[in-house]
Amino acid sequence: MDPTLDEFKSLVDLSLDRYLPKEPAWPERVHAAMRYSIFAGGKRIRPLLCLAAAHAAGGAAGRERALSFACAVELIHTFSLIHDDLPSMDDDDLRRGRPTCHKAFDEATAILAGDALQTLAFEIIATDPAGIENPALVLEALTVLARACGTAGLIGGQMDDLKYEGIPATPADLERIHRTKTGALIVATVVGGGLLAGGTPDRVTALRAFAEPIGLAFQIVDDILDVSGDAAALGKTPGKDAKSGKATWVALHGLEASKQRAADLHAQALEALHSFGSEASLLRDLASRIIHRVS
Amino acid sequence: MDPTLDEFKSLVDLSLDRYLPKEPAWPERVHAAMRYSIFAGGKRIRPLLCLAAAHAAGGAAGRERALSFACAVELIHTFSLIHDDLPSMDDDDLRRGRPTCHKAFDEATAILAGDALQTLAFEIIATDPAGIENPALVLEALTVLARACGTAGLIGGQMDDLKYEGIPATPADLERIHRTKTGALIVATVVGGGLLAGGTPDRVTALRAFAEPIGLAFQIVDDILDVSGDAAALGKTPGKDAKSGKATWVALHGLEASKQRAADLHAQALEALHSFGSEASLLRDLASRIIHRVS
Repeated sequence: MDPTLDEFKSLVDLSLDRYLPKEPAWPERVHAAMRYSIFAGGKRIRPLLCLAAAHAAGGAAGRERALSFACAVELIHTFSLIHDDLPSMDDDDLRRGRPTCHKAFDEATAILAGDALQTLAFEIIATDPAGIENPALVLEALTVLARACGTAGLIGGQMDDLKYEGIPATPADLERIHRTKTGALIVATVVGGGLLAGGTPDRVTALRAFAEPIGLAFQIVDDILDVSGDAAALGKTPGKDAKSGKATWVALHGLEASKQRAADLHAQALEALHSFGSEASLLRDLASRIIHRVS
Repeated sequence: MDPTLDEFKSLVDLSLDRYLPKEPAWPERVHAAMRYSIFAGGKRIRPLLCLAAAHAAGGAAGRERALSFACAVELIHTFSLIHDDLPSMDDDDLRRGRPTCHKAFDEATAILAGDALQTLAFEIIATDPAGIENPALVLEALTVLARACGTAGLIGGQMDDLKYEGIPATPADLERIHRTKTGALIVATVVGGGLLAGGTPDRVTALRAFAEPIGLAFQIVDDILDVSGDAAALGKTPGKDAKSGKATWVALHGLEASKQRAADLHAQALEALHSFGSEASLLRDLASRIIHRVS
């Protein structure tokens, strides 16, 4: 019988615990900060996407080969959240209802914890024992992740996100921000999972065609929740992005058009999986969760 | 005829220019900040060590295979300088006589430029075309660099460096700080160069035995220059570390004992190369430059 997404999540949480240095080990404080932010109640959407894509491309064996990559993506995601929350960036005090890393520790520790999570992401991909079978494939997946993380991906998206707090963004600017800041890592996690699972080029291409609309839709739903979400479910005060003058999909296109675009992108993503059978059921479930989530 | 260290430096500068995204490319501001800090008059000691080690282990062909790694180490070094200079860390306004990155740009841009340099380091190693011949070796070298950068290496060293601004460091604490914050990356650059050049295990072991004392000596010389160096040559005001209450070798052991220890470590490093002939001449020259430098 197929595993469930809940089983995937438990596996990811256990593996992250194994990959992260223990708190009592030197240097204790930065290890504590890394663990504080990694185990902060995240839904693990990105690692689940990775494992579901690997399952679709290569079954149970494929999934196993993608596990370290799935965890690495969560490390990169968490590193980006820690740095984005800093006073000189979005200056957020709370994330998921808890103090942000620099509030719980201090700014220097938060910067270094983010730096260390990035380093560790590349280290766990490069040292996965399963990689010995096909090191060239590991390098390919690692490159996919590095490019998604770099200035053409989430770092570029964050630069633009800050820039457009002060000046008006056009719809094209905003789509670029969403595709880089959020979409690129979602595409990388799906493509990397498919690659490491040994997916054929056709299957990996289909997975990319699934991930691109899902990545954009993910952020549009985030913007929708920022104006219509529930504070308790979100773990933060809704309306913050709108108030801070950040460009959002809802501000530029309105609530109804935003919901319609998310639904259209969802349909486009499902269509990209038309050649897959039940092996992509988990991936389809996840897409539905992403579109219909309330937090 | 053997190349000179000056030729190596020109090659590294040209290669860094090729690897770094161009300033006019989106996102312009972070690309400008990355280039500002990379082309800030650095002596390129770490890439030169990498290429000299590669030359010692594998001649001209070996050197070529280590070039991307040599540049990656410089990206990591520069990323760490940008983040260490931030107001919440060492709060430095000047580096090599020019405004630090966050002063020339702003804090958010400096944090993201550092982040992006780290990402790019791993990307250029993973995508080096020469890596196709032996991708497992590329993964091994990449792992060496990631470990030197992580919490067991320079990030851990920087955490400790900040911690011991407030409390007294024992000689053992200080040696750990110097070996992690400075030494680890120097060891990684030499070992990575030797590995990628196709060095035999014996040669790589000897290169490591050379790099460990040189890495520690490098930082001891830095501490010596902080109290006895010339402001114009250093591009910064000497005495800053001593004044800020930072633990330094000179403060704990005195100037004469510090000079003696640097000389002893230099001798130990040269002894580690006893099985090498003239192929290690450049590496010996570099060791001498590191010990006898005035800036």
